[in-house]
Amino acid sequence: MSKIPVMEIFGPTIQGEGMVMGRKSMFVRTAGCDYKCSWCDSAFTWDGSEKERIRMMAPMDVFQELKELGGDHFDHVTITGGNPALIGDAMKQFIERLHQSNIEVGLETQGSKWQDWFYLVNDLTISPKPPSSGMKPDLELLDDIIRKLKNHKSNFSLKIVVFDDADFEFAKMLNNRYMGDHIPFFLSVGNSNPGEEGDISSRLLHSLDWLWGKVLEDPEMNNVRPLPQLHALVWSNKRGV
Amino acid sequence: MSKIPVMEIFGPTIQGEGMVMGRKSMFVRTAGCDYKCSWCDSAFTWDGSEKERIRMMAPMDVFQELKELGGDHFDHVTITGGNPALIGDAMKQFIERLHQSNIEVGLETQGSKWQDWFYLVNDLTISPKPPSSGMKPDLELLDDIIRKLKNHKSNFSLKIVVFDDADFEFAKMLNNRYMGDHIPFFLSVGNSNPGEEGDISSRLLHSLDWLWGKVLEDPEMNNVRPLPQLHALVWSNKRGV
Repeated sequence: MSKIPVMEIFGPTIQGEGMVMGRKSMFVRTAGCDYKCSWCDSAFTWDGSEKERIRMMAPMDVFQELKELGGDHFDHVTITGGNPALIGDAMKQFIERLHQSNIEVGLETQGSKWQDWFYLVNDLTISPKPPSSGMKPDLELLDDIIRKLKNHKSNFSLKIVVFDDADFEFAKMLNNRYMGDHIPFFLSVGNSNPGEEGDISSRLLHSLDWLWGKVLEDPEMNNVRPLPQLHALVWSNKRGV
Repeated sequence: MSKIPVMEIFGPTIQGEGMVMGRKSMFVRTAGCDYKCSWCDSAFTWDGSEKERIRMMAPMDVFQELKELGGDHFDHVTITGGNPALIGDAMKQFIERLHQSNIEVGLETQGSKWQDWFYLVNDLTISPKPPSSGMKPDLELLDDIIRKLKNHKSNFSLKIVVFDDADFEFAKMLNNRYMGDHIPFFLSVGNSNPGEEGDISSRLLHSLDWLWGKVLEDPEMNNVRPLPQLHALVWSNKRGV
């Protein structure tokens, strides 16, 4: 019986970023990642610092815990990580169980690994990591993932975190690469200090203002949608909300 | 030759609200409204205070001015008001001219009047006004508009501005009324003082936090997406951006 390595389950809360920004959702965060982004805001999922919290759970048990926690207060579940695309058949079973209860599924992954269950995800975000992360995406693998999702008419988007000019150029390169595919293309302004306490909204809004300026002055970025992390604006760096 | 009463043309800027939040867009604001919402943030379009600025323009002249202002820095135009649905054939011609240049069109209207050119709009927002506005929407007319758009498979959404509990109840009533239609349903937190100068972001984020709380605790509002006006967060109450 295949299982899911679960780091945390929480909600209901508000999805603060990307293609379903504002959507009321429960969150399931899986443990384990094939990347080690320098600015990862969930490094505890892969750096060993909270490994004693990881639970290997059967898909039905994750579903059960969601229902206990969220009751009838949700119809959407967001699966994030770590990288949930590292998980195979157990994830497929979990998504199918949610769909049986008319619960929609959003999922975010960096596009470093394909899973056939991507086709089942209602709102799929592919988030290739920019230079500031220290990672180097495999663009041919990414091409393959995008092609499959397009052919399947999946509801998916690209989302690039942008901290600096080099990240913006990376996003522009990808936007040009997939321009003909008309994929919804989001930029998410980076949170340069996810450990900072207190109200960080002024700093984040200032960063967003900078990103908006970059997008507005660039005719190769007409179609992109630069957005903040709304949850960080409203709730700063609190965990588990 | 039919013309469009134009209040202002500006951009490129960022669409700060609703279904295409974050989209880089040019704005065309038409003059004239069949409503007089108490908290209207564009009352200058209908209260006579800036009537000398209104220009009666041919659709091709509006297009020309957009190109002069935005050059090759846009592929999306947002039409707002006032109520742009008061305009007939001239608006149809204008939208068709934009589509000829592969420019997409977003449009917002309160749902108090139907126009056949609604079918041409790429991102159509129907925004019935809640009790705090002092207006009383005609729900049978709204039903008819929703039915037509659904039958046509238009890409449209509902958006309700929420200032207080009564507005939230109004939004809930509408959400239940159209639940079976699976229409994307946005809430937009009200800006209680659109004339206030200085940084209003803290006040707006506090209001959004309140609205998120209302949505999270209500099992009849699982599907709605409560969002801020991002442009007001980043740029406060500046006009023409």
